[in-house]
Amino acid sequence: MTTTSHTLNDVDLNAVGALVEAIQNDPGKAGTTWKSTVEWHGGFRSASRSRDFAPAESDEPVALGGEDTAPNPVEQLLGALGNCLAVGYAANATAAGIELKDLRIELEGELDLHTFLGLTDGNAGYETIRANVSIDSDADSETLQNLHEKVISTSPVGHTLSRAVPVEVALA
Amino acid sequence: MTTTSHTLNDVDLNAVGALVEAIQNDPGKAGTTWKSTVEWHGGFRSASRSRDFAPAESDEPVALGGEDTAPNPVEQLLGALGNCLAVGYAANATAAGIELKDLRIELEGELDLHTFLGLTDGNAGYETIRANVSIDSDADSETLQNLHEKVISTSPVGHTLSRAVPVEVALA
Repeated sequence: MTTTSHTLNDVDLNAVGALVEAIQNDPGKAGTTWKSTVEWHGGFRSASRSRDFAPAESDEPVALGGEDTAPNPVEQLLGALGNCLAVGYAANATAAGIELKDLRIELEGELDLHTFLGLTDGNAGYETIRANVSIDSDADSETLQNLHEKVISTSPVGHTLSRAVPVEVALA
Repeated sequence: MTTTSHTLNDVDLNAVGALVEAIQNDPGKAGTTWKSTVEWHGGFRSASRSRDFAPAESDEPVALGGEDTAPNPVEQLLGALGNCLAVGYAANATAAGIELKDLRIELEGELDLHTFLGLTDGNAGYETIRANVSIDSDADSETLQNLHEKVISTSPVGHTLSRAVPVEVALA
């Protein structure tokens, strides 16, 4: 690692390196727990809060019975995937010495409302999710393709969506 | 439906009823597409935007190489699940004539960093996700349990996480 690489893409590789070293010395340190608390505000309005950050508001469009004051949960889910992919590109590009000038990700997914509305049993969730990634970089296309494959194979939100995760919802 | 039920829990059941009727008349109307656009802001900072709403900022904790200015993507994912469940409780409680006085959902999930950090192949995503739901209502426990089961069986984000969804990420 050169001294200039520390600030390539504005990514602090020293912090990531220290974490990798800590986990190599004590693999148990790789086990992390993440949390969020959601409070209902009436109607279809609610807000999620993690750690001490400002709450993120949620609502539904008017056609779905909401007041349309904020993105809805399935849009938030796509945003989480895009933000996760952005971290992946930034981290892996920096580790490989690739400068990113710009990065933009367009996400979309299809969802059939029949199950959500109680009209049929079945899958209430996304049937498919797509992300189109635009990268502005002087790196050649093979280098960017290798970067892309690394990101796909290491994305926490990407893997959470593409695998079946046990989700346990308990009523207190 | 009584006239008072229109505003029970501050939920507009008329709008949901109109959507259900429209879909019963034309099932194709149940097919919906949702979108989000993510722009990278340098480092591990980015923001997701849906429709005309304000962007939702994203970052990583300092220990993961970020500047810790916003919830990270895996926290956002838990928030999306909680917000989706909140809509489900509000909608199904209102349809069943159950008044909700308060609703709060605590979410957490475990994630092993080995794959994200490139130390091993495998699952970079959540291994498990749990949600603990607290409802303040005068309804009896059997009524609330039935409500709970209805919400679980119709949750778009819940089903997206608990099933394997095809996620296609393409480099432009």
